[in-house]
Amino acid sequence: MPKIVDHDARRAELAAAVWRLASRQGLDAVTMRAVAAEAGWSTGALAHYFADKEELLVFAFETVADRVGRRIVEAAGHARDPLEILRTQLVEGLPIDVERRAEVRVWFAFLGLAETRPRLAQAGRNAYRLWRDRIAKTLAAGQRQGLVDDAIDPEREAAALIALVDGLAIQATFEPRALTAERQVELLDERLARLTLASAR
Amino acid sequence: MPKIVDHDARRAELAAAVWRLASRQGLDAVTMRAVAAEAGWSTGALAHYFADKEELLVFAFETVADRVGRRIVEAAGHARDPLEILRTQLVEGLPIDVERRAEVRVWFAFLGLAETRPRLAQAGRNAYRLWRDRIAKTLAAGQRQGLVDDAIDPEREAAALIALVDGLAIQATFEPRALTAERQVELLDERLARLTLASAR
Repeated sequence: MPKIVDHDARRAELAAAVWRLASRQGLDAVTMRAVAAEAGWSTGALAHYFADKEELLVFAFETVADRVGRRIVEAAGHARDPLEILRTQLVEGLPIDVERRAEVRVWFAFLGLAETRPRLAQAGRNAYRLWRDRIAKTLAAGQRQGLVDDAIDPEREAAALIALVDGLAIQATFEPRALTAERQVELLDERLARLTLASAR
Repeated sequence: MPKIVDHDARRAELAAAVWRLASRQGLDAVTMRAVAAEAGWSTGALAHYFADKEELLVFAFETVADRVGRRIVEAAGHARDPLEILRTQLVEGLPIDVERRAEVRVWFAFLGLAETRPRLAQAGRNAYRLWRDRIAKTLAAGQRQGLVDDAIDPEREAAALIALVDGLAIQATFEPRALTAERQVELLDERLARLTLASAR
């Protein structure tokens, strides 16, 4: 392999192949052989990037986390009001369209696999910590601007809000008819309304 | 095979073997061959019960759902107050001890597998519907006794409460230190307190 290979470009290529496989056929389908075939590489070339299946799965997980993370940062960039940013940081985790539904399915599939794979569990831990930190910071900003009840503990509240989003995502995945995109967002909005309501009590 | 075989007893034996495998090694380990070995059966005898891997997975899922369901019914049987019953119906879904942690891990692993397996997805749908119906009924009973705010829509609220529990379960699985058993129950209790607080507003 020549030294001028653009490793970032190649990793992006691989990430796209992994995502296509996972979203189409589930994580079962993410094997060294299948990813190599999907990317049009040899398995030998792939082995250059990933020592084993677990490394490949960690990469796949980070690919999904990056997709969601990038969208959050982008959407939040358009907003100024902390409550609006907060809403964006949470809505992006809900399976409200085809793309997000695929992400959510794949995301939770990792949880099951992480059970027996420490590095994957670590990647999951990092992703949740990052999400929680971002939301806690937005809540604190909301408090400084008098938009969020001072009695709320930002970190605790962040955990509860993420829990609601993850939980809605699971039910919506199993029962898309009972929990439509509209209903998911309504339930989140009801919850968010309480952040300010509490101070009005 | 003699006709006097007790099929219920044999299925219970299999359920125990499936649970041991899944809780110890994850759903990856639940294969026809491994389950047969764990139960001390031949794969031929197992094939008598399950036509394929998907049927085996549906059985494994129902085994976990039954464990949780039975515990809920049992615990709720000791309580009289609808709010106490409601709390039980939700706490049993939280990973607050070793046994429940294993159940939660396995439960979410099914979500990923259900992605590409319609019968497993159906079993998941049924389990959530049952859980939601039970909770909605308890909320309605609470309303009849004046313990739960009348403005609350029981089915909607049930979906939101289950979402919180599932979401707490996920974060606790990835970050057991950030979301201890105590913190999980506290966050649930704070949420439950609002069911009555709303009417006091």
